[in-house]
Amino acid sequence: MMDEFQLIRHYFSGLTAGSEGVVLGIGDDAALLTVPSGQELAVTSDTLVAGRHFPHQTRPFDIGWKALAVNLSDLAAMGAVPRWFTLALTLPAQDADWLAGFSEGLKALADLHGVALVGGDTTRGSLSITITAMGLVPTGRAMRRDGAVQGDLICVTGTLGDAALALRQLSEASADPSLRRRLDRPTPRVEAGQILAEWGMAAIDLSDGLAGDLNHILIASQVGAELRAEKLPQSPAFKRAAPADALALQLHGGDDYELCVCLRGEDFQAAQPRLAALGVPLTCIGSISAAPGLRLRQGAEVHAIEPRGYQHFSDTRAP
Amino acid sequence: MMDEFQLIRHYFSGLTAGSEGVVLGIGDDAALLTVPSGQELAVTSDTLVAGRHFPHQTRPFDIGWKALAVNLSDLAAMGAVPRWFTLALTLPAQDADWLAGFSEGLKALADLHGVALVGGDTTRGSLSITITAMGLVPTGRAMRRDGAVQGDLICVTGTLGDAALALRQLSEASADPSLRRRLDRPTPRVEAGQILAEWGMAAIDLSDGLAGDLNHILIASQVGAELRAEKLPQSPAFKRAAPADALALQLHGGDDYELCVCLRGEDFQAAQPRLAALGVPLTCIGSISAAPGLRLRQGAEVHAIEPRGYQHFSDTRAP
Repeated sequence: MMDEFQLIRHYFSGLTAGSEGVVLGIGDDAALLTVPSGQELAVTSDTLVAGRHFPHQTRPFDIGWKALAVNLSDLAAMGAVPRWFTLALTLPAQDADWLAGFSEGLKALADLHGVALVGGDTTRGSLSITITAMGLVPTGRAMRRDGAVQGDLICVTGTLGDAALALRQLSEASADPSLRRRLDRPTPRVEAGQILAEWGMAAIDLSDGLAGDLNHILIASQVGAELRAEKLPQSPAFKRAAPADALALQLHGGDDYELCVCLRGEDFQAAQPRLAALGVPLTCIGSISAAPGLRLRQGAEVHAIEPRGYQHFSDTRAP
Repeated sequence: MMDEFQLIRHYFSGLTAGSEGVVLGIGDDAALLTVPSGQELAVTSDTLVAGRHFPHQTRPFDIGWKALAVNLSDLAAMGAVPRWFTLALTLPAQDADWLAGFSEGLKALADLHGVALVGGDTTRGSLSITITAMGLVPTGRAMRRDGAVQGDLICVTGTLGDAALALRQLSEASADPSLRRRLDRPTPRVEAGQILAEWGMAAIDLSDGLAGDLNHILIASQVGAELRAEKLPQSPAFKRAAPADALALQLHGGDDYELCVCLRGEDFQAAQPRLAALGVPLTCIGSISAAPGLRLRQGAEVHAIEPRGYQHFSDTRAP
């Protein structure tokens, strides 16, 4: 049986290179990192618990990918360039196949964005993964939740509702693999976030559902918003499936890991082609108002939306 | 029932102040922090799992204290000044009393060292706490594991074996409360570490037992060591209890959270009174040799020590 030290070295050594600024990486009491002057350090921590943040039957590769993706998505929402991460992995037992798949998934996404594993801890217990991701953003240029102002356009990257629909299809024979991929292997909008930070004054990543997440911006910025139902972007697979509760899935479904950003009208015009060049659609779905609260326009009707957050799939929704 | 946002605000708001360099604290997608030029960022992550890293009956206050203490101890071993931390808390259920006690323990230690909570995540699951702590150390001045050279004195702060003895006494009516306190509320040697970094070229914190932890220095520095059994420092309570296997407890018992540092002879003379002024004993327990391996001198005899690491109390020891 390998001890912790051997285990880390064996499965995670491929993850320890690949980023600048690492003076001392994994294997000491702490990592030593260099933050260049003119940059702020952005730090976020997210935990994934088996059976709560991913279905128990999820492939180890996808668990590794998703554990890092949800953290990079947070950095993307600030407009930060991800650089380093630490991994706290709690496992019921040492399982070579599981560890090999998990570390491959982690590495696939880490390599894509040039981030390096710089520290961590492995413990025995029920399966849980906490990653703390660190990135850099030019001083004063981060997108925060408190910068939205009346008249801003509310924009989202990609499409909404795919992961929530995939979750419902889990036990169905007709499950669509392209939706399932959106659930298992979300794409953090890292490059898009950096571009949007050139103009965006408020942003958030969509992890708990559009309504609940956007509401955090509204509260922090002391504003309100009106969304237009027909503008919420749907993927081809979502359109094909045409769920009866499409709107609820798009407003309250979690795990999208898209960005929601508030932009002035002329900035939206500038940003959209830049993101299109990356293959990332940017859609205007509504606007910021002075009147507080979140409203949805459907045709001629406008009604209030409960900003309830999606509490992940095995949990009950907040009242 | 409070949602995650309310829960964090209610119990952890007192923890979010108290450190410089926080541009944006808890409540956004990521925290924004400032690292001054001339400083390196030291980062460490440690997880505590209930029933593994602390007994199930441990008081919530002590769990909070210890979860931060083990991380600050890692920063202390680098000679870093702790500044910020993130908290990933996985709880079986919302329990107001537990959260109140836990957050008080966390706050007591955080306030002592002026560190601020800057981010985190709360999830439902079996009790587990991952803290990522960040600190600052002047560029190039951190103590690492690879800096020990032949002739260095091996020194330790405080006393060894108290926590391991307390663990054994858990179910005994005659348990000594001063030993129990060493197990439940370890004292990270934060100020001592900063002072030792003026001279120390290699250091490690003692979490898994002296022999195993010192062995990490020996391997990283490609040297060996000889310890002197009679020099291993014992607390008054440890002496009173006089366990038959005192030496094994001191060599292989975990959870000491003292520092082990390699110093030149003249530097030890300079460091000892500086630490004494903080109330921290510094004891020379042996020396670094060119010949690899770890040896123990007892009177006229010298024998090799297995550098097995203590795998925490509910685990089996590594072979």
